[in-house]
Amino acid sequence: MYIGIDVGGTNLKAGLVDESGHLVAVERTPLDFQSPEQFAAATAHLAAAVARKGSVGPEEIACVGMGLPGAVSHDTILFITNIPMQNVPIVKLFRQHFDVPLLLGNDADCAAVGEFFCGAGRGCQDLAVVTLGTGIGCGLVLGGRLRGGVASSEGGHITICQDGELCNCGRRGCWEQYASATALIRETKAAMAAHPKSLLHELAAQNGVEGKTVFQAAEAGDETALMVCQTYVRFLADGVISLVNMLRPEVVAIGGGVAGAPDALLLEPLRELVNRESYARHGGRSTQVLRAELGNDAGILGAALLQRAI
Amino acid sequence: MYIGIDVGGTNLKAGLVDESGHLVAVERTPLDFQSPEQFAAATAHLAAAVARKGSVGPEEIACVGMGLPGAVSHDTILFITNIPMQNVPIVKLFRQHFDVPLLLGNDADCAAVGEFFCGAGRGCQDLAVVTLGTGIGCGLVLGGRLRGGVASSEGGHITICQDGELCNCGRRGCWEQYASATALIRETKAAMAAHPKSLLHELAAQNGVEGKTVFQAAEAGDETALMVCQTYVRFLADGVISLVNMLRPEVVAIGGGVAGAPDALLLEPLRELVNRESYARHGGRSTQVLRAELGNDAGILGAALLQRAI
Repeated sequence: MYIGIDVGGTNLKAGLVDESGHLVAVERTPLDFQSPEQFAAATAHLAAAVARKGSVGPEEIACVGMGLPGAVSHDTILFITNIPMQNVPIVKLFRQHFDVPLLLGNDADCAAVGEFFCGAGRGCQDLAVVTLGTGIGCGLVLGGRLRGGVASSEGGHITICQDGELCNCGRRGCWEQYASATALIRETKAAMAAHPKSLLHELAAQNGVEGKTVFQAAEAGDETALMVCQTYVRFLADGVISLVNMLRPEVVAIGGGVAGAPDALLLEPLRELVNRESYARHGGRSTQVLRAELGNDAGILGAALLQRAI
Repeated sequence: MYIGIDVGGTNLKAGLVDESGHLVAVERTPLDFQSPEQFAAATAHLAAAVARKGSVGPEEIACVGMGLPGAVSHDTILFITNIPMQNVPIVKLFRQHFDVPLLLGNDADCAAVGEFFCGAGRGCQDLAVVTLGTGIGCGLVLGGRLRGGVASSEGGHITICQDGELCNCGRRGCWEQYASATALIRETKAAMAAHPKSLLHELAAQNGVEGKTVFQAAEAGDETALMVCQTYVRFLADGVISLVNMLRPEVVAIGGGVAGAPDALLLEPLRELVNRESYARHGGRSTQVLRAELGNDAGILGAALLQRAI
């Protein structure tokens, strides 16, 4: 049995996973960060709790994997986005409370490993998982092995637009400035300001502007929303095609909340652009563009199965 | 012993390579393409000739590697740029004349394998070789294994400029439209047209406009040439940084004729941009930008050693 821990900005989730990649039990707790020591204790107690919930003793756990929103080495948290930890020897601290081998992974990498073994990448050897959220996460499994650890991909920070929008990373024109959920919401708001009669205003009045707002309005036939969707898919395709040309994976799986959009507005036009413009159409193999399958479980499943992909 | 064959647009070159990666003997012949059968015979005879030259019998050759400017599978030439071959079962045809195991590789991949074992990538595990020529070739060795065969990289076709220059591949804004030797020559000519007093005209009158012309004029202090060099390095950096962010290799080696430019005009400003803008500076590991070391021998050395990288 394996345990996967998904460290989010506000919650910790742990899952007990069996040999065939099924989630047997899940435990959650708020993050409530106080110190690296307390964080290590909290994650260790959560792991112990999910093992108990599944009636499994620590000696039956092959290893625990932890997916973190930041950079890690094999035994240390190097730095984390949004949680104040730097160079924390987490493996040592964790095992003082729960003495089972602990592996660390970047959260985008864990999502890729999860999809590789249990989701959209089942049966393939080369998979890229592109997660559309606050930024763009990019996890790569190449030749059956995670391109992970410290050398994990920052595929959201490929340029698609010279001298374009300033990115948090300090570069200009990064893909995630155009194709993340954040970028989609920004463009939705800009379109609303320019088109006061758009249906977008009505939808936004109910729930605020979310990633899905523009797709709902487009489905209802709103021209402004349709235009925003088309531009967004074009930006998304620009990065996906660069990724495909660089690495020629068998599958690119699109994840994150935005990936839930209706096929006709997102995946279908995206596939059309990838098929039309990627280099592989000249021969060799083409890449399938799929929706990621595991949703919020990708992180814990991938963390749990990390050992098999490294 | 190994034999590497480098198939160029006008010449065939074969090299006999020993276990430690040294070129022991070389043979050349014009390509003179007539048919796939004649091509197979010509390459087989060239392999036999270089073995004889090194006084080595066919039974002492572990394998022959062939680097081709196009797409290949393990036993078939799928298509070749500039030589009319498609779906040619080259391994079968070749072995009718010289019965030694034959491996096929893309030429950019072979250059990467050569640099990995014998050049700028010695001792590292992750290497990208970017060759600046008519286009941009991109060979990747990741975790000590060539990312090759049919799935070989087309890293020259990552977008750096949305809706930019039309590329031969059908996409717009591809990196090679801005950072290949072809692009540099195009920009040099454009700068000459706009600046009739530039020293570039004097140099071009002697040898025509080549990739190196602009670097020669810049070294002599010509302002117009300096400007072209700076813009070119900016474009080159845009793609290199995307590659670095996507894959975080230990080394990126820059090859091709343009890479021979003075360090102060090419590699130094390129390194400065990569260090300033790549994501790795936030932690994790940074990528070294080096000059490729093997020049024209990279292709035969890499073809010869292909077996060790796949």
